[in-house]
Amino acid sequence: MDYKASGVNIDAGNEVVRRIRSLARGTYTSGVLSDIGSFGGLFDLGAGRSGDTVLVASADGVGTKLRVAFMTGVHRSIGVDLVNHCVNDILVQGAEPLFFLDYLATGRLEPDVAVQIVEGLAEACRANGCALLGGETAEMPGFYQDGEYDVAGFIVGRVARDQLIDGKRIAPGDVLIGIPSSGLHTNGYSLARRIAFEVAGLEVATPTPWDRTQSIGEALLVPHRSYLPVIRPLLASAAIKGMAHITGGGITENLPRVLPEGSAADIDRRAWTVPAIFQLLQVLGQVATGEMFRAFNMGIGLIVVCTRQNSERALAILERSGERPVPLGQVVSGNREVRYVGD
Amino acid sequence: MDYKASGVNIDAGNEVVRRIRSLARGTYTSGVLSDIGSFGGLFDLGAGRSGDTVLVASADGVGTKLRVAFMTGVHRSIGVDLVNHCVNDILVQGAEPLFFLDYLATGRLEPDVAVQIVEGLAEACRANGCALLGGETAEMPGFYQDGEYDVAGFIVGRVARDQLIDGKRIAPGDVLIGIPSSGLHTNGYSLARRIAFEVAGLEVATPTPWDRTQSIGEALLVPHRSYLPVIRPLLASAAIKGMAHITGGGITENLPRVLPEGSAADIDRRAWTVPAIFQLLQVLGQVATGEMFRAFNMGIGLIVVCTRQNSERALAILERSGERPVPLGQVVSGNREVRYVGD
Repeated sequence: MDYKASGVNIDAGNEVVRRIRSLARGTYTSGVLSDIGSFGGLFDLGAGRSGDTVLVASADGVGTKLRVAFMTGVHRSIGVDLVNHCVNDILVQGAEPLFFLDYLATGRLEPDVAVQIVEGLAEACRANGCALLGGETAEMPGFYQDGEYDVAGFIVGRVARDQLIDGKRIAPGDVLIGIPSSGLHTNGYSLARRIAFEVAGLEVATPTPWDRTQSIGEALLVPHRSYLPVIRPLLASAAIKGMAHITGGGITENLPRVLPEGSAADIDRRAWTVPAIFQLLQVLGQVATGEMFRAFNMGIGLIVVCTRQNSERALAILERSGERPVPLGQVVSGNREVRYVGD
Repeated sequence: MDYKASGVNIDAGNEVVRRIRSLARGTYTSGVLSDIGSFGGLFDLGAGRSGDTVLVASADGVGTKLRVAFMTGVHRSIGVDLVNHCVNDILVQGAEPLFFLDYLATGRLEPDVAVQIVEGLAEACRANGCALLGGETAEMPGFYQDGEYDVAGFIVGRVARDQLIDGKRIAPGDVLIGIPSSGLHTNGYSLARRIAFEVAGLEVATPTPWDRTQSIGEALLVPHRSYLPVIRPLLASAAIKGMAHITGGGITENLPRVLPEGSAADIDRRAWTVPAIFQLLQVLGQVATGEMFRAFNMGIGLIVVCTRQNSERALAILERSGERPVPLGQVVSGNREVRYVGD
């Protein structure tokens, strides 16, 4: 009896490690000291730069968006989703990413699938200037069904202590600026899949009503975008009082996370057009609007809070990046809640 | 239709977050700036201490040891396993842990199980002086069977650049010192479970042959130990040239990870008594000895490499910590391989 007979294929694992290694090397930034294969990944903070450094760390998964990848056989974008989700989670506190690690678990390792995922991780890491410093690939017979896997990401970034964005100075009268999402990002997929594939009986290959060349599967797989490129110029201008990444719980639950005691948010739902994918899901699933705003980002993936006098400049900087920022409403007195107006 | 109907229970998630929060707070060290609930966890490196800092990061899981937890209903030690595995992975490069994050994924969140796991994480974090800085609890209907889950850990530690342990100065003549493991740690469980529960047909409650008060389930669940307390005094003495954490692949595959080109390791198998649990698994499964040493740690969880002249001092320091270090053999000329002698 040997280890392979028990369902664990060490040789397949070694093959994946070899193929991952060159992908990871392609993401290395000047701080990286180690190569995949050492027990821990090494990142040198650099002499003289780290005296006032705050590290910002986050862990996340992709949730049941994975099942859309299983249904379509497209896995590369899952890697992009995971990195960009993590990048945004630390960006909202003002941090630029330093390095990322992944955890990939399957029942039976399929090297081609694992490599597709890591290609996506590496692509997004490179785009964000973030090193893919290491990770763990676990083969766990019986834990996952054939062709299925789970994946988690861990990111560490840095911000100078005096550049930390924590929302504490947010006050009534401040302005809320929304930045469009690219789709569902990585939240609400249990509900979205149930509506699309069970209630409405669509197939992943069914064309969308708004674009006959895009399938429902493709529309649901559009990767989570990174807000780092468009927010970076704003960070430099120090105009941001607070930011919220709109993830699970939607605007309704995520915006209050940066609101201090005594403040609330008035959001004007007429300020933007909810993208067609969310409208379709709402109609097909007969979902109440309040529930939609708790389950999905509804087209707004990040919210920036700044003073009214800084808001014109912030909008101009965002537009110069090619962005279409949405003035969503304002901060008012209240109990850390979101109030939707304009229904 | 609402989100809960799709299998995701946001309220159960919120309850777990509340119960986790106080556990996490109990682990906070002076560097922690944030509280659970902010988008990223914040860790202040501290002015004046970080100029020559190298960060060491690692991601890991517990593997199919989880299934023993499912069989016995004991989950707290899984949290201990995960933290200690991660602590050891960065310790072997000379790093002390700063903070830890977890990813916990289930099909249907059971708050009591999640809290048990986090209690274990928090206990081990406190014991290692490591902050439980954050994490993600994901409820993914259909991904995991009822009562099952997967968990991953992510750790970041620090080491001064000139204290980094990388094995590069290891040379023939150096001495290998083994530190005992507490059991299987977190590796080889697919094979161990197959032997114990399928080939031999044991039950988790079956008493072990060596101790009628300990069941097979308990013997398999003994937590992965942290080597930080016993290695810390050695780090201070700068006597260590390299260290290997004996994880998946056993001594056979892990020791070569720190051996430089031109060196190999001679290990004398007579130097220690292989603990009874490994002997039992080998006999029940009729497993070849070479395969045992590739699948299991065989009673040695960490190997320290130092010069012959430093070895007496290292052994004395380890014994003063109450440890029973094992002189395993020595470094010889060769091609980054382990050769077992004394069979």
